[in-house]
Amino acid sequence: MEETFVPFQGIKNDVKARLTCYKQDWTGGFTAGLRILAPTTYIFFASAIPVISFGEQLERNTDGVITAVQTLASTALCGIIHSIIGGQPLLILGVAEPTVLMYTFMFNFVKDRPDLGPKLFLAWAGWVCVWTAILLFLLAILGACSIINRFTRVAGELFGLLIAMLFMQQAITGLVDEFRVPNREALGQTEFIPSWRFANGMFALVLSFGLLLTALRSRKARSWRYGAGWLRGLIADYGVPLMVLVWTGVSYIPTSSVPHGIPRRLFSPNPWSPGAYENWMVVKDMLNVPVLYIIGAFIPATMIAVLYYFDHSVASQLAQQKEFNLRKPPSFHYDLLLLGFLTLVCGLLGIPPANGVIPQSPMHTKSLATLKHQLLRSRLVATAHRSMGKNASLGQLYGNMQETYQQMQTPLIYQDASARGLNELKESTVQLASSMGNIDAPVDETIFDIEKEIDDLLPVEVKEQRVSNLLQSTMVGGCVAAMPLLKMIPTSVLWGYFAFMAIESLPGNQFWERILLLFTAPSRRYKVLEEYHATFVETVPFKTIATFTIFQTTYLLMCFGITWVPLAGVLFPLLIMLLVPVRQYFLPKFFKGAHLQDLDAAEYEEAPALPFHLTCEGETGCFAETGEVLDEMITRSRGEIRHTSSPKVTSSTSTPMKDSKSVQSPRYLDKAFSPRVSVLRGERSPQLGGRGPLSPRTGEAKPSKLGKGAQGSPLN
Amino acid sequence: MEETFVPFQGIKNDVKARLTCYKQDWTGGFTAGLRILAPTTYIFFASAIPVISFGEQLERNTDGVITAVQTLASTALCGIIHSIIGGQPLLILGVAEPTVLMYTFMFNFVKDRPDLGPKLFLAWAGWVCVWTAILLFLLAILGACSIINRFTRVAGELFGLLIAMLFMQQAITGLVDEFRVPNREALGQTEFIPSWRFANGMFALVLSFGLLLTALRSRKARSWRYGAGWLRGLIADYGVPLMVLVWTGVSYIPTSSVPHGIPRRLFSPNPWSPGAYENWMVVKDMLNVPVLYIIGAFIPATMIAVLYYFDHSVASQLAQQKEFNLRKPPSFHYDLLLLGFLTLVCGLLGIPPANGVIPQSPMHTKSLATLKHQLLRSRLVATAHRSMGKNASLGQLYGNMQETYQQMQTPLIYQDASARGLNELKESTVQLASSMGNIDAPVDETIFDIEKEIDDLLPVEVKEQRVSNLLQSTMVGGCVAAMPLLKMIPTSVLWGYFAFMAIESLPGNQFWERILLLFTAPSRRYKVLEEYHATFVETVPFKTIATFTIFQTTYLLMCFGITWVPLAGVLFPLLIMLLVPVRQYFLPKFFKGAHLQDLDAAEYEEAPALPFHLTCEGETGCFAETGEVLDEMITRSRGEIRHTSSPKVTSSTSTPMKDSKSVQSPRYLDKAFSPRVSVLRGERSPQLGGRGPLSPRTGEAKPSKLGKGAQGSPLN
Repeated sequence: MEETFVPFQGIKNDVKARLTCYKQDWTGGFTAGLRILAPTTYIFFASAIPVISFGEQLERNTDGVITAVQTLASTALCGIIHSIIGGQPLLILGVAEPTVLMYTFMFNFVKDRPDLGPKLFLAWAGWVCVWTAILLFLLAILGACSIINRFTRVAGELFGLLIAMLFMQQAITGLVDEFRVPNREALGQTEFIPSWRFANGMFALVLSFGLLLTALRSRKARSWRYGAGWLRGLIADYGVPLMVLVWTGVSYIPTSSVPHGIPRRLFSPNPWSPGAYENWMVVKDMLNVPVLYIIGAFIPATMIAVLYYFDHSVASQLAQQKEFNLRKPPSFHYDLLLLGFLTLVCGLLGIPPANGVIPQSPMHTKSLATLKHQLLRSRLVATAHRSMGKNASLGQLYGNMQETYQQMQTPLIYQDASARGLNELKESTVQLASSMGNIDAPVDETIFDIEKEIDDLLPVEVKEQRVSNLLQSTMVGGCVAAMPLLKMIPTSVLWGYFAFMAIESLPGNQFWERILLLFTAPSRRYKVLEEYHATFVETVPFKTIATFTIFQTTYLLMCFGITWVPLAGVLFPLLIMLLVPVRQYFLPKFFKGAHLQDLDAAEYEEAPALPFHLTCEGETGCFAETGEVLDEMITRSRGEIRHTSSPKVTSSTSTPMKDSKSVQSPRYLDKAFSPRVSVLRGERSPQLGGRGPLSPRTGEAKPSKLGKGAQGSPLN
Repeated sequence: MEETFVPFQGIKNDVKARLTCYKQDWTGGFTAGLRILAPTTYIFFASAIPVISFGEQLERNTDGVITAVQTLASTALCGIIHSIIGGQPLLILGVAEPTVLMYTFMFNFVKDRPDLGPKLFLAWAGWVCVWTAILLFLLAILGACSIINRFTRVAGELFGLLIAMLFMQQAITGLVDEFRVPNREALGQTEFIPSWRFANGMFALVLSFGLLLTALRSRKARSWRYGAGWLRGLIADYGVPLMVLVWTGVSYIPTSSVPHGIPRRLFSPNPWSPGAYENWMVVKDMLNVPVLYIIGAFIPATMIAVLYYFDHSVASQLAQQKEFNLRKPPSFHYDLLLLGFLTLVCGLLGIPPANGVIPQSPMHTKSLATLKHQLLRSRLVATAHRSMGKNASLGQLYGNMQETYQQMQTPLIYQDASARGLNELKESTVQLASSMGNIDAPVDETIFDIEKEIDDLLPVEVKEQRVSNLLQSTMVGGCVAAMPLLKMIPTSVLWGYFAFMAIESLPGNQFWERILLLFTAPSRRYKVLEEYHATFVETVPFKTIATFTIFQTTYLLMCFGITWVPLAGVLFPLLIMLLVPVRQYFLPKFFKGAHLQDLDAAEYEEAPALPFHLTCEGETGCFAETGEVLDEMITRSRGEIRHTSSPKVTSSTSTPMKDSKSVQSPRYLDKAFSPRVSVLRGERSPQLGGRGPLSPRTGEAKPSKLGKGAQGSPLN
């Protein structure tokens, strides 16, 4: 994105570019047929459960003014509108934690004011949304999205960890509350006598930890050893909603022996019950808000605008990482404008606004890449079988496959990468063909494993369309109607889910990984190098890593601390914003530029394990394996693509676990071995990353003197 | 052990051999000083907690006739006597699950007979013990121990898995009972109203799962990445008692809000309360048992005798595996005789007898090996430092070290391996010295890392003495006095501990590993080969493994089923015994001899990971690392040493995860790489195993034709 600040320029470009492919966005979606339901349900579950949880959190924090009905309605409404008239249809919208947090602050501010009170809360929040919308309009018009990159990894990951801490805090307070009498209930009911309260609390512990542990397990199902591939894939993709279901089922086991209210369940009025609609008509109340408060609403509005600008753009960016090889144009400016409009609508309707969410947005793109892979694959396999049936030569075979491949392509090709996928296919196949002997001889299946070859040749492509987004939003809307079913979910399961979200967001967060590195016993630090690891581990001295991480942790604790301050808490996004100048002007005074760049790398760059780690997956080439490869490519917290860097040839690269004895082993083994690693590693990666993960020069890595282990390694 | 059936011959030999080193057994222990307390407390905790758990189990099953006081008393009494006049002082005695099981069967038989009833139970059990003692005397005198090897791995592991199933059954029934009103309590107490019962059950779930999960985690502490080495070692060694303590603490957190009896805790009379001693004077009741029952007592007695003969001898064997390099003689026959005597004493005292226990006995030896290592190491390091301070040459240095080493040796050396440790030290050092340049030049610390070298050179040796065993038995006896403290342990923690014992016993059990293999997805079976694995995985076709395992599982389920049959259940050891002829005469008709041999290998033979797995531990050479190496050497379920076999060069050895692409990589790499693996692997192993884990011929493994993956592999 070039930095362009001509007003309206960005929006105009976005609209023009997206309009050209608008029709194809729909036709492409419908031609995928029923298979579109796989990514749709996947994203539906991934976004519905947090939205329900946030609803329950808001219900507690706003004394029931906002419930899961409102969060679901907002997510569905914004999602449907965005999927139809939004720019980038890969972006998933939802009510997210920053919104919940800001609404909580706002409610706490409002509830004790005699001239506002809980009754006028939604009206005042409506004014906040009006201001927010105006600010978002301004940002979009002035092209602010083109400088979103100023918010570097340091800011993004600190924010991510802050959210994780808030999730964990919610999980803990939620669980503790299970032992207490809830505010909203009358005392004296059976389920609130001490014995039942204690029983309820203990039951809640069982349910939340049950959900937490099983959900964490199920996420790793793809690498389980037991069960068929499709089953493992299914559990990995849908394990979390499945576990919510299972533990909800468990909560019904002792119904015969416990009173009705145990365990406590999701609290929300049915959307069709009388009074449920009263806060949907907020507009007329908005005029009752005193003028001073209308003006004051500007303060939280700036905070929300900054958060949304940041969250929405980053979510969109992550959904369009270049490794996904998208063929349709981005639309940052126009989408921010639309977000302003959506915020306005939500404010006037008295529901909390939704914005682009992480990690659901990149998850969406990933699942569409799998879909596209399946579609391409089944077509190419059919073509290859047909050709071989006709006794075609290898040359003809590839000719036919290329033709089919071309037919499957989106007619609209924007990027200069236009015919690239095709070229790659051609080049690599010809190379392979010639290495296998005569290119003109008829091929038979014994020497040519069709499915495997096709898997290896297929580039990553994404089925870019609007149907999956529209469908999933509609399904979220359907949840509102399914409220009586959702109300069967025990609240304790949701607290477990909050803890799950917090823990699940940690791997892939380099800030978190650095905190762990500080606590790693010095003698064990080499183990980090044995796995795939971020490049900074090799290039930055340990002391610098430590200082930087301690600074960042202190900053994080300040941010967390400020959220506890009753009134000023609303200003916590200011601290996040402040990180931009801190990073640009303050940090370079204390850290070397090169180190800062590695610690704050724009992309998640990884170095391969040292000396090597041969987990050569994907023999069978089934779909689940594709999923596993994609899963492993992507960080869990933000859905970022992990880049495999060619290892930097420094003294520190030398394998640190060698000791004096291994000097006796011939050094050439390391040299001789490296190319094979790249052969094995490279099997799948070249077409994923666009660039080879291990450049050939690795093979020439000059053997550095080792002596006794890697004293030169930054970790020693 | 040669098979000798001349009456009394075995016993005579044992007594003679052990008498010669009897004095050294005591002096050697006392010279170790305070360091002896480490293995002592380690074994004390490892044997006290199960004994307490079994006490609680018996308390339930015998309506309180036998409690933890009795099991602790028996363990202490037998342990003290055995440590003083027993043959092999490495053997640890304790009340074990087979005893609990048999006593449960016996109680169920007795309690409804009008002419016996619970009152005469201990008297009748006394008769059973008398018969058992007579049978054990006969077995010992006739030299039955020399054919203990007829009970092969098939029988041993089936028995192990049966015990695991019974543990798990106890854990589950125990937990379910936490929701019910216990038999022994009067109804109408506060803690038994439905709400508190439910609360108690839920609390029990939290406590047991808490204990189970944290205990399982703590066992793996040594490989944690965080925390100092000594802390990780401490947690790994004492994590389980620590967790019992922690969760007992947790159970006291809600005391202010719950009635007294929640959660339920260990039930046992204090040993000094009136009436507690009444069942200690069983002898006079024994004459009141009708003659018919006295004769009938012979039936359970044969079962117990067989179980004890089997358990006691195998425990002793595992404590003396040849890789421990013991220097003092074994004493199977005499120890069995002594066991008969101990059984008699326990029977007359009305306490359940104790026998040699697995895995505590091999754990004991292992901890004494660590102790000896520490003692030798600190002495040798001091010597080396002194020599280097005097500017000694490498030759002199090693001379001094050899001298010190010799001084530390037990003067009594039995096995022909007499001067072996010393020779090894000499050979390897000279070799190393010459490879490092002039052997006569003065050494300085930059080229010679004393601590590391000494760690590499030290052979495994065991501090064989009687003090640790005596002390730990005395400490178990001390637990009887500490009954008021032990009674603070919630029963639910013990149920969690039963589940822990069941799960903990599984890894290393090849039968269990084969069951898992059956459930492993075919496409994932290669993962087994990527880790260290039992040799049968490579040498036996998968179908044969499957058939054999299904047969064994059916047999196991029959054994488990029979324990549920009210009266015949007592005969379950018969089924285990029956496995000896089944293995010898029946199985060879259905399976090839070579396959049977691999599936039923006497030793736990392992093949290294394919193609390689470089976890080169122990750089820093601290004690914790030694412990880790020893931990990894030994199977968890039985404390067996794992042997690393030289991989058999068959077509199936070829790495199964290679696919068509890797054909392009030069084949010589595999060849060239193998020797290095053996160099790295061999660093620590030669002195541990006595024989090199990877013979040099591996390097010449002829490259088998691979083509597309390893179709030849038995797992495909």
